[in-house]
Amino acid sequence: MQFFQDLMPSLRIGRWTPSVLRKHLLKEETESIASLCHMMMESDGEYSSLLLAERILNAYEKLDEMGRLEFFTLLLDDYDIDVGQTRNAIEAYEQNPDADNLLRFTSAAEPRRQELLRRINLAPGGTRRLVKMREHLFVEMSRHSELKRIDTDFHHLFNAWFNRGFLLMEPLDWTTPAHILEKLIVYEAVHEIKNWAELRRRLEPADRYCYGFFHPSMEDEPLVFVEVALTDRIPGAIGEILHRDPESEASDNPTCAIFYSISSCHDGLTGVSFGNFLIKQVATNLKMRFPQLKTFSTISPAPGFRRWLQAEARKRDEIAQLMDRFDAAADDKLRDELEKIAAHYFLKQKNSRAQPLDPVARFHLKNGARLERINILGNPSPIGMERSFGTMVNYVYDLSKVEENHEKYVKNNRIICSPQVRKLAAK
Amino acid sequence: MQFFQDLMPSLRIGRWTPSVLRKHLLKEETESIASLCHMMMESDGEYSSLLLAERILNAYEKLDEMGRLEFFTLLLDDYDIDVGQTRNAIEAYEQNPDADNLLRFTSAAEPRRQELLRRINLAPGGTRRLVKMREHLFVEMSRHSELKRIDTDFHHLFNAWFNRGFLLMEPLDWTTPAHILEKLIVYEAVHEIKNWAELRRRLEPADRYCYGFFHPSMEDEPLVFVEVALTDRIPGAIGEILHRDPESEASDNPTCAIFYSISSCHDGLTGVSFGNFLIKQVATNLKMRFPQLKTFSTISPAPGFRRWLQAEARKRDEIAQLMDRFDAAADDKLRDELEKIAAHYFLKQKNSRAQPLDPVARFHLKNGARLERINILGNPSPIGMERSFGTMVNYVYDLSKVEENHEKYVKNNRIICSPQVRKLAAK
Amino acid sequence: MQFFQDLMPSLRIGRWTPSVLRKHLLKEETESIASLCHMMMESDGEYSSLLLAERILNAYEKLDEMGRLEFFTLLLDDYDIDVGQTRNAIEAYEQNPDADNLLRFTSAAEPRRQELLRRINLAPGGTRRLVKMREHLFVEMSRHSELKRIDTDFHHLFNAWFNRGFLLMEPLDWTTPAHILEKLIVYEAVHEIKNWAELRRRLEPADRYCYGFFHPSMEDEPLVFVEVALTDRIPGAIGEILHRDPESEASDNPTCAIFYSISSCHDGLTGVSFGNFLIKQVATNLKMRFPQLKTFSTISPAPGFRRWLQAEARKRDEIAQLMDRFDAAADDKLRDELEKIAAHYFLKQKNSRAQPLDPVARFHLKNGARLERINILGNPSPIGMERSFGTMVNYVYDLSKVEENHEKYVKNNRIICSPQVRKLAAK
Amino acid sequence: MQFFQDLMPSLRIGRWTPSVLRKHLLKEETESIASLCHMMMESDGEYSSLLLAERILNAYEKLDEMGRLEFFTLLLDDYDIDVGQTRNAIEAYEQNPDADNLLRFTSAAEPRRQELLRRINLAPGGTRRLVKMREHLFVEMSRHSELKRIDTDFHHLFNAWFNRGFLLMEPLDWTTPAHILEKLIVYEAVHEIKNWAELRRRLEPADRYCYGFFHPSMEDEPLVFVEVALTDRIPGAIGEILHRDPESEASDNPTCAIFYSISSCHDGLTGVSFGNFLIKQVATNLKMRFPQLKTFSTISPAPGFRRWLQAEARKRDEIAQLMDRFDAAADDKLRDELEKIAAHYFLKQKNSRAQPLDPVARFHLKNGARLERINILGNPSPIGMERSFGTMVNYVYDLSKVEENHEKYVKNNRIICSPQVRKLAAK
Repeated sequence: MQFFQDLMPSLRIGRWTPSVLRKHLLKEETESIASLCHMMMESDGEYSSLLLAERILNAYEKLDEMGRLEFFTLLLDDYDIDVGQTRNAIEAYEQNPDADNLLRFTSAAEPRRQELLRRINLAPGGTRRLVKMREHLFVEMSRHSELKRIDTDFHHLFNAWFNRGFLLMEPLDWTTPAHILEKLIVYEAVHEIKNWAELRRRLEPADRYCYGFFHPSMEDEPLVFVEVALTDRIPGAIGEILHRDPESEASDNPTCAIFYSISSCHDGLTGVSFGNFLIKQVATNLKMRFPQLKTFSTISPAPGFRRWLQAEARKRDEIAQLMDRFDAAADDKLRDELEKIAAHYFLKQKNSRAQPLDPVARFHLKNGARLERINILGNPSPIGMERSFGTMVNYVYDLSKVEENHEKYVKNNRIICSPQVRKLAAK
Repeated sequence: MQFFQDLMPSLRIGRWTPSVLRKHLLKEETESIASLCHMMMESDGEYSSLLLAERILNAYEKLDEMGRLEFFTLLLDDYDIDVGQTRNAIEAYEQNPDADNLLRFTSAAEPRRQELLRRINLAPGGTRRLVKMREHLFVEMSRHSELKRIDTDFHHLFNAWFNRGFLLMEPLDWTTPAHILEKLIVYEAVHEIKNWAELRRRLEPADRYCYGFFHPSMEDEPLVFVEVALTDRIPGAIGEILHRDPESEASDNPTCAIFYSISSCHDGLTGVSFGNFLIKQVATNLKMRFPQLKTFSTISPAPGFRRWLQAEARKRDEIAQLMDRFDAAADDKLRDELEKIAAHYFLKQKNSRAQPLDPVARFHLKNGARLERINILGNPSPIGMERSFGTMVNYVYDLSKVEENHEKYVKNNRIICSPQVRKLAAK
Repeated sequence: MQFFQDLMPSLRIGRWTPSVLRKHLLKEETESIASLCHMMMESDGEYSSLLLAERILNAYEKLDEMGRLEFFTLLLDDYDIDVGQTRNAIEAYEQNPDADNLLRFTSAAEPRRQELLRRINLAPGGTRRLVKMREHLFVEMSRHSELKRIDTDFHHLFNAWFNRGFLLMEPLDWTTPAHILEKLIVYEAVHEIKNWAELRRRLEPADRYCYGFFHPSMEDEPLVFVEVALTDRIPGAIGEILHRDPESEASDNPTCAIFYSISSCHDGLTGVSFGNFLIKQVATNLKMRFPQLKTFSTISPAPGFRRWLQAEARKRDEIAQLMDRFDAAADDKLRDELEKIAAHYFLKQKNSRAQPLDPVARFHLKNGARLERINILGNPSPIGMERSFGTMVNYVYDLSKVEENHEKYVKNNRIICSPQVRKLAAK
Repeated sequence: MQFFQDLMPSLRIGRWTPSVLRKHLLKEETESIASLCHMMMESDGEYSSLLLAERILNAYEKLDEMGRLEFFTLLLDDYDIDVGQTRNAIEAYEQNPDADNLLRFTSAAEPRRQELLRRINLAPGGTRRLVKMREHLFVEMSRHSELKRIDTDFHHLFNAWFNRGFLLMEPLDWTTPAHILEKLIVYEAVHEIKNWAELRRRLEPADRYCYGFFHPSMEDEPLVFVEVALTDRIPGAIGEILHRDPESEASDNPTCAIFYSISSCHDGLTGVSFGNFLIKQVATNLKMRFPQLKTFSTISPAPGFRRWLQAEARKRDEIAQLMDRFDAAADDKLRDELEKIAAHYFLKQKNSRAQPLDPVARFHLKNGARLERINILGNPSPIGMERSFGTMVNYVYDLSKVEENHEKYVKNNRIICSPQVRKLAAK
């Protein structure tokens, strides 16, 4: 961000920071992090906060796992709410509900680590570094569940900072700067991009598009991105998308936009969801650009399907036999059989909250999409077999119905699907 | 922001929105604001929030003063914290301080209008429109003090959103787009800019600079801006800056950067201070660009001085007589006399919190500046006489000392000043 | 251009060139221009050419009129073609038409000042400064017709450099940088823009557009710009465009784009015409942006009309009487009479090359436009009365017919006009 | 270029041109190229020229070699100068040297194909496509030497269009758009870049820089680029540059900028040299950015050396024996021997124009560089052995002396070299 590049010489570690500055900034930190945090909360000199923020992050980034656990414990114990003070404040407000008492209460009721993290955010690249810090926190949380209390504060702050009103949707194509494109290679989670040649095949053909959300203070890093192919029809197999010969002509008059991969880039932003929004915004955007588009659909994996099949196989012989006989070369009969089972899986099998078992299904159905079609062997690659027993699903986003579908799903647990899938499940 | 421009056809009211869209969006709102707010808090379909946010703001912006008071009262009464629930939550957390209880408590402890405002922020231009809303709130607050409770929430949200880590410092010069420059004319608060010709004289000469802070979601609107002149010496009169013949050559080798005007642009951001930070960042920036600069100083008004003099005049005859005899043409003797009184005013006269009476002095001294010199008749214009009895003050920012000075001022109420001023005050 | 900004310290005279550099570059030139030009043509060290180019232009720009005449005379006499050498070269080529002989001939046949000017173009801002030089040349040419020989070379070079393949069409609106917008105020040649407030009324309303051509090496300077209003119908009076209340709503569904002002910015580019091209490109551009547009028309002055009327008045009594009785308040009968005369003027009166007398008519008809309507008192302002006896003309650009119309006009001297105008002229 | 993107729907073949437009534009051309060229020269409707230009280039690009030869023959025969007319014009000018006669003569003296090519340049991407056309011309020229006459016109036009006053120097780094970076991989001519990982190692480390020249009408294509490494000393082996571990720290205080690769990108621009200029401009630029830099040097191959050695070996036994014994593992004694021979080669061996035999030496010496050091086995890789018998040479650019050196070299055939090399050659 221009802001920090312009800021203070001692903070500019760019491509070639004069060595004297580099030394100054990177000199051995003599204070403990605990003491630096204390100094920062004491200070109300905003300008010094900036240097302190940098020193804290520098010190933090040199910690090993043990050190990070200590730091998180510090946040947990020393920067929590003061229950007694909070209780007094709520009583005072109850008796005299004026602005001063409200402010006193809301201040007391906010864990002090929120303010600490807000101040740390002043450092150059602060936001990005705090997102990383939360990733470390997840690791520690898995072993020290009490740290979850800290995470509520990270989550609260990130929700405010990454308010979708602040996000920018940007196209990503072959004219995008290389240091951003390489992140696509790193972060692509659904269909691996092996190298730059493959990346180019994803971005350059006239029928391929990619869009990402960016945040102004992490402008070189997509938060989430989605890959789209324009086609003549809803594809039944991911290979139609991934292995189209790039030299062959794209369709002259595509009517479908296929979302074939959506990847979140930062674990540290878990719980701050953008994907929902991005799909609808990209759909809207493409519709404006290519009015001839009629259908917006995904081609998605079914990661819970194989897991469920295996569990069933232990209980039911006919499933076990089916699984034994089934492979990438399965014949039509076998495929039909599996399709019925899959339809049953998606429509009838529910978790404890009466939602479908499949996490991808939950995501798209909650967004208001319609489960359109189940494609047995839609991805017969080893990884497709491993992940979803080869099955791919099309979820269709009908923009005029997503809100209504969403309501039905959320309020009545209704799964919106095509008649064809419903019929299959009824067999 | 690209985000919203790209968003949904129905939300794009650009330079030439097709009439059908315009009509759709601007159609008569049939729901009450209260009901729209209720719908938005009920909804968890994020995409629909966006439309609701736009509808709420549209409806709000058509309200008259009475309507606004009603809306604020709605926020006050219906979107406050639930004291009982909060109390229960704090007790639960006390007994079992786990993450769930903490989250339950912090959620309960946050007035619900904060979430409401966060969702309203999703609308196109939401941030800017909420800043405006707070300006309306100030008007109502002056008559209905209970509304101050709402303002604590606006203030809290704006502090998070306008975290200085998200601000961009940008130079403003004669190559800046016109729609931004015209804001300088509108917002300049210290030395009025009458027209474009005058604006050009402020921005174009080689020795004149201007910088502003911008926020990514209000990118056409400076939040605060500062005007700077490069000179050979600290000016004793504002005329040296404002009325330098623009055709005459700027100094070939300037050593001083003079901050001669700093203006905040949005009343709705009161309490979210940037000016402090901006001055230091601009100073750092200029130092890097022009290493020959040695001194960073303001030339500032003294708005409390005349007020104080008039009060004193009612008590002390010699002050009354001095004021009678004093005008823009006063001789050296009179000026010396007034200078001593001014030094006394700045150094000895304190308010109830043991701080100087002059608000501009408080601002710069708190920032860590040094009161360098008092310039009697530094601004002998009618407005200067009216505002500060003609007096201008130089506050010097020595970047290597601002933190130390700040600490002394904040902790020990010490006024940092030059020996010369101290001597005067001692007379 | 970045190129020169990055070039050599001694050439960068920016907003704040360190004085030492400024002095170096601006030091007294001790060589004569003649000698500098000689050195440059001798040198084949390209890097030194750059400095020499700067020195030549610096020296040139300090010349008074007498000095400029001397310089042009130098170009005329010392940098012409060598007739003898050229004749030998053409003979050699005739005998042996190989590449070497061709090169030798074309080199000899090009006046040497072309190469000199090409090298001068290397200086920072060279192109712009050479355009200015040609403006000086025009002044001298009017008194020293032999200098026209030099102008053929300027014209030849500018035609190559300003090849339309290198021009950029850019929208100009209220978000355009101020230093470019101020040029619109300066260069507007048809309907004066008095100040920034008026400029804003031309650019900001939703139904007003402006486009200009730019050249990469003069990127802050439009070469030509055109102002457009979107309307419901072809306006009969310029006041409908210029004095529409900016607060009133623009038409919701405009069908016409009206080119109401087109201005060339640099006299020094005379003979390198862009206006023709710009109108058609803007029309194409607007059509793509607003497909509902059906009609592209100008509302243009008739600068030759009053002149011709006055000449006629001296010959014909009825014209003299009409002119006496006619003013901005003329009744319908008088207006009808004048309209018939005007139709006659446009369609029947020809110059020696069998073209219409009116220069604006010649421009648009040659471009392939159709003379659509004559508007008596279309501009009843004093300047409109003075310039065109109040008459405004609509020329319609039907993009599907401009080529055909152009051919008819150029090859057969046919004036394309509406039946209505033809009928009037026949009366 | 924005220009053409905005131009006419039928000309926009972008990422996704609606099929109807594509068909329109790509429809079978029914006219012959000869006839299209004829139509274009006849037409003076500039707007139609644009379409004709596109049709001509479209037709041209579908030609096979035979067709291209025919087209070039058309240019040669039908668009040459008319010798008779030219002779008449020169005589008329001799008798009456006025502007009209000069214009008539210069017009006659310019082969008509120049105007034809200027008009073809109006097509979208015209410049780039004409550069390609000249590459085809080179192929035909090698077999049909009479076509060289056409090339003089291409050369003349390109020299005017690519006047260095129009070029932009741009840094190329890891934030440059991918479609530009991939051109570096394609065009790198000196030290092959195998893939994106290697490209990144060239661009991303803090001590590596790359700059290219761009032309406004070919903005996605570098014309020439140079790669630079900042180091502590002049490297004796290219491996120090190419194989520095990218993870290791770059020097904290580099004093040398090493130009280790310079590549021209377009054969079609042969004879329009930029490399000379680029090196000096990059050196100036780096000096301003890193004032601590003292030395600007290349590390260059010696492509003529092996060739010359082999020729000598046939004549002199001791050379033949040396070559037999010499390989990448040669000992000091052998290396010293070869060094002396190399010094002799560079300083004493001349071609028929009394210049050094080595083309790289000629390039840098003509630019005003100093032959600083000969590095035996500076590039012991197979390709280095193959190309230069392993020898690399440092040419130092002392900006304060390049002009003087250049003059000495050009006027007196003096080879500027270090005392050390001179001494070696004297042995």
